[in-house]
Amino acid sequence: MINVGILGATGAVGQRFVEQLANHPWFNLSALGASERSAGKPYGSIVKWRLETPFPEKIAKLKVVPTSPKAMKNVDLVFSALPAEIATDVEKEFADAGIAVFSNASSHRMYPDIPLVIPEVNPEHLGLIDVQKDAGRDGFIVTNPNCSTIMMCCALAPLRQFKFTDVRVATMQAISGAGFEGVAAMAIYDNVIPYIGKEEEKMESETLKIMGTLKGKKIANAPFKISASCHRVPVIDGHTMAVWIDIKEPVDKLKKAFRDYKPPIKGLPTQPAESVHFFDEEVDRPQPRLDRMRGNGMTVSVGRVREGVRFMAMGHNTIRGAAGASVLNAELVVKKKYL
Amino acid sequence: MINVGILGATGAVGQRFVEQLANHPWFNLSALGASERSAGKPYGSIVKWRLETPFPEKIAKLKVVPTSPKAMKNVDLVFSALPAEIATDVEKEFADAGIAVFSNASSHRMYPDIPLVIPEVNPEHLGLIDVQKDAGRDGFIVTNPNCSTIMMCCALAPLRQFKFTDVRVATMQAISGAGFEGVAAMAIYDNVIPYIGKEEEKMESETLKIMGTLKGKKIANAPFKISASCHRVPVIDGHTMAVWIDIKEPVDKLKKAFRDYKPPIKGLPTQPAESVHFFDEEVDRPQPRLDRMRGNGMTVSVGRVREGVRFMAMGHNTIRGAAGASVLNAELVVKKKYL
Amino acid sequence: MINVGILGATGAVGQRFVEQLANHPWFNLSALGASERSAGKPYGSIVKWRLETPFPEKIAKLKVVPTSPKAMKNVDLVFSALPAEIATDVEKEFADAGIAVFSNASSHRMYPDIPLVIPEVNPEHLGLIDVQKDAGRDGFIVTNPNCSTIMMCCALAPLRQFKFTDVRVATMQAISGAGFEGVAAMAIYDNVIPYIGKEEEKMESETLKIMGTLKGKKIANAPFKISASCHRVPVIDGHTMAVWIDIKEPVDKLKKAFRDYKPPIKGLPTQPAESVHFFDEEVDRPQPRLDRMRGNGMTVSVGRVREGVRFMAMGHNTIRGAAGASVLNAELVVKKKYL
Amino acid sequence: MINVGILGATGAVGQRFVEQLANHPWFNLSALGASERSAGKPYGSIVKWRLETPFPEKIAKLKVVPTSPKAMKNVDLVFSALPAEIATDVEKEFADAGIAVFSNASSHRMYPDIPLVIPEVNPEHLGLIDVQKDAGRDGFIVTNPNCSTIMMCCALAPLRQFKFTDVRVATMQAISGAGFEGVAAMAIYDNVIPYIGKEEEKMESETLKIMGTLKGKKIANAPFKISASCHRVPVIDGHTMAVWIDIKEPVDKLKKAFRDYKPPIKGLPTQPAESVHFFDEEVDRPQPRLDRMRGNGMTVSVGRVREGVRFMAMGHNTIRGAAGASVLNAELVVKKKYL
Repeated sequence: MINVGILGATGAVGQRFVEQLANHPWFNLSALGASERSAGKPYGSIVKWRLETPFPEKIAKLKVVPTSPKAMKNVDLVFSALPAEIATDVEKEFADAGIAVFSNASSHRMYPDIPLVIPEVNPEHLGLIDVQKDAGRDGFIVTNPNCSTIMMCCALAPLRQFKFTDVRVATMQAISGAGFEGVAAMAIYDNVIPYIGKEEEKMESETLKIMGTLKGKKIANAPFKISASCHRVPVIDGHTMAVWIDIKEPVDKLKKAFRDYKPPIKGLPTQPAESVHFFDEEVDRPQPRLDRMRGNGMTVSVGRVREGVRFMAMGHNTIRGAAGASVLNAELVVKKKYL
Repeated sequence: MINVGILGATGAVGQRFVEQLANHPWFNLSALGASERSAGKPYGSIVKWRLETPFPEKIAKLKVVPTSPKAMKNVDLVFSALPAEIATDVEKEFADAGIAVFSNASSHRMYPDIPLVIPEVNPEHLGLIDVQKDAGRDGFIVTNPNCSTIMMCCALAPLRQFKFTDVRVATMQAISGAGFEGVAAMAIYDNVIPYIGKEEEKMESETLKIMGTLKGKKIANAPFKISASCHRVPVIDGHTMAVWIDIKEPVDKLKKAFRDYKPPIKGLPTQPAESVHFFDEEVDRPQPRLDRMRGNGMTVSVGRVREGVRFMAMGHNTIRGAAGASVLNAELVVKKKYL
Repeated sequence: MINVGILGATGAVGQRFVEQLANHPWFNLSALGASERSAGKPYGSIVKWRLETPFPEKIAKLKVVPTSPKAMKNVDLVFSALPAEIATDVEKEFADAGIAVFSNASSHRMYPDIPLVIPEVNPEHLGLIDVQKDAGRDGFIVTNPNCSTIMMCCALAPLRQFKFTDVRVATMQAISGAGFEGVAAMAIYDNVIPYIGKEEEKMESETLKIMGTLKGKKIANAPFKISASCHRVPVIDGHTMAVWIDIKEPVDKLKKAFRDYKPPIKGLPTQPAESVHFFDEEVDRPQPRLDRMRGNGMTVSVGRVREGVRFMAMGHNTIRGAAGASVLNAELVVKKKYL
Repeated sequence: MINVGILGATGAVGQRFVEQLANHPWFNLSALGASERSAGKPYGSIVKWRLETPFPEKIAKLKVVPTSPKAMKNVDLVFSALPAEIATDVEKEFADAGIAVFSNASSHRMYPDIPLVIPEVNPEHLGLIDVQKDAGRDGFIVTNPNCSTIMMCCALAPLRQFKFTDVRVATMQAISGAGFEGVAAMAIYDNVIPYIGKEEEKMESETLKIMGTLKGKKIANAPFKISASCHRVPVIDGHTMAVWIDIKEPVDKLKKAFRDYKPPIKGLPTQPAESVHFFDEEVDRPQPRLDRMRGNGMTVSVGRVREGVRFMAMGHNTIRGAAGASVLNAELVVKKKYL
């Protein structure tokens, strides 16, 4: 068992990390980092647990510590649920102190020497860890993409065998993506908010890095264009998106590609049986409420592949799109013996 | 005052017709058609009024009649809120009996001699009324487009001055579009349904007719391609849509086009001051709950014009997109003296 | 026309005040008070308008002033939408400066010399204005009750002719009651929050004062017991409540009381035709979405009077229950020549 | 393993039965009854699975049979999710054919010789099975209460030690209680429907039977009065209710009763660790979204016990309040060796 910690353990993503790690077969959750004023108190007494799954009682007594390498020196690996503005410095500090950082924050995603990884899509990008080590860092940082980006890239993975140059995506994103307090009920109820700050930019830049190629010590961006339009809808969990891709092959070939898809890695503890579930027959799927918990929230669902070429993709934004993504990255790193 | 009737006066669109016509300056609502078993009863005793605006009491005592030209012979003009499967025959029957039919049903929209009209977009298509008359019909049929199509065409109108060949649209449509009983709460709550039967086909075919050119006795379709992806979201009223259009001009020129837009007609009683309201500054508009009632529900709102070219459009689906659309068409027909 | 101002003009209740006053026949909205840093700027440039009714453009250019009597010396009367913690001092300051204050804040409601008024229920309590004047205050303060209290008291008014000693009320309150940012979407979506801070206490204490009797210079509390259980539900506007009252008369007599009810005042500009609308026949009314806008949001709807005695009451919490309540109080004060 | 069947296996409650029984340690789900026209087809091909838990694949191939004792002769026990109007005859037919029927339908609940049971509340009422047998029936019928009744009775159980004569309950019920198609989205969205057909009558009559005493061959009703007001709110699953009960003991004693409560039975496979979870400290619990899945949906949560005496109760209406209730009853019957 590897001792692990969480940075920012009380927020929406932090709670998801606790949920995902409470019974993990490889990781022993032994440090919960939160704000200074909570330090020293049992996690159960300070967290306002808001997930629908029951609070993991065995974590309740764990005492919260400050988010510093010194306070968390008993761990080899931390998961970061910090907000971007704090993450930039704190994650570097942890990595410099020899700790492996798996970050859900956007701060370091686009750094050339930091891997932005989805295990089923670009596991080989972990090679950038060596670039970080070569530069003298004791630990390292591995990031996972923005929640919407993850769903789209998982859905694009089976289509990489085809030629395409132009991707358009219109998202219908869940309110949990903004954190527990991020969206006021008065703002989103009976409404659509056709704007999510920096989301379109993230989808457009991150995707090209993820689907790019590691050449030597650098990632060469993927050679296609992507244009995103991002919108918030009144859904609790699950980002749904309509995708257009200019593949000229017959639609049946794309369907077969989704049907037959096998990801390049397998056997990680939280990896779902299907990284992509394909709805071949049903005309009205995927739907967030019915499909977000497939594969314990780690499966991305795809459906409605039709002329255009158009299709729908959907996945759980705070599991597959956040905490679960980081945990899966950590499992990959362990398996690949980078730790 | 012109005496008018409504076909299918008790349903979701029928009630909107009643609401729009109860105090109309040109039209005197004098016949309400419903099913045989309701005939003879006061409207107020059989309708289950479900709009948020108060029930127009003066209409309450009007006795319901069967939906036949004979029972409605006191009117010169009817508005049809019939379901498509019934509308095909009934609307023809009324037109053959010398009555002007303004239909919200999809049945006749794509007939070559029947105008599919949005007054601000293609008023000249009313010329097809003469084609119908020449063929020996006493009355005539005028249709308005599908609700989503209307919003998109209104939003495209200011852009007709530019060259484009490729339009993509992803919709987030309100539940009222399916009628009062059309969508179960269990189906849409905390959910997105990424499919609306025939909606994409309607948007794709109707748009090309509306934006086409009347040449002699025929409409030549508009020469661009359109690809739609239609989705239902938990919103009561107001269809929101993300549009891509391949205009090569600078974005500022498009913004100016929206800002300066003047529709080709003016002065109709229910025509809004702005047929298109343009959000130039706000990054997060239009929003259905805040913007659907602009211009008494007849204004289409546009915003977020940005590189791509991408923009958002939104309008009230059961007013601008249904009952209000038919009423505006009737006003245009009266003004153009076709009646 | 009387010049009036609003204290706290940008929040949820402040915007409702602007909406209610923009076209008022007696009041000329001429001063909008907000925070120091907004002072001097046009209202239209600082308010984030979030009501569904269109922004009243003629108010847009009005320059915002600080909330001090000095900055608002051109007005005779102010409406206070201030939060309770600020209202206590600021409202006193205005009253001491000779201005009539109509407050929606809870701060002064229970002061013995300050009237807590619903015009249709206890107009005679305005007599306390004289008590304030006698104590040497130049202006005065008049308060309206908490939103839930107003609905219940309006619904109880027709029943005062009967003997009762025990009232129980279970509320289902709208999210707008907590202000625009008061309830996070993640907290209330697909949920009920069975607690609203101080709401039960307010309903229990305010009701007894409102339904009490002015004797000399004091209010003697009404002699019944009231027990409230208050809950938040996912509704935008409109507080619904189930009421039990131990009246021993036959249910038909209570129905008649609701049916025949005439409030003790009439003819105020924003007073609705019916202060209480009674659903005699319908089994499933009132409903907030369908009934909250009755009487422009000023009518309280009552239904389901049945053995128990039990009934339902519902009204618009930010109009009848807040801004509209204060405006109606001000109209009463003008009519009664206290100003 | 006991072979069991489901009557009405495709509806909302039927699907919950499938979910609860797919992996049951004592029951082998071997017959799925549905309409004639589905008979012979695999369950997976005809059910439109709408639960958020994944469809149990091993059940998919089971062939659907007609709902007749003949077609289901391989089972010893059936669970009935039939609508009341059908259940009356069909359930009798099964019982007469020697099969044990566990019914969620309301049809037989109030028959004097049919037990209406909640295992933690009135297990001894199973004695009525003997009354049925004595009357010559080969099988027997056991019913579980209406969903709201179950929550309330579970919450009242710890309070039976106190004297009380008057219970009032105001419910806020979930839309799933009406079945998948029971409530239109247009009806409940942004709304409260203050009426649920026959619900108040059921709560009032069933509670007195359940909390009554088996004397000889009859149940003597419990000697208190109950008055219910039932309302539908926009929540997917979980019925919340505010309860008043006229216990004169200090509130702390009631809290202690909830805290110390031990149900009279234990050890049934689906019985939760806590049949009642008591929120002692939190002021804003229980909440349906956060608490409905406690004890796999079988725990009833209680909170906000305060002067009045008032408290809140909440439980999952289609698990604890329907399918799970029947399954728990069947487990009790097996344990008590009635089968």
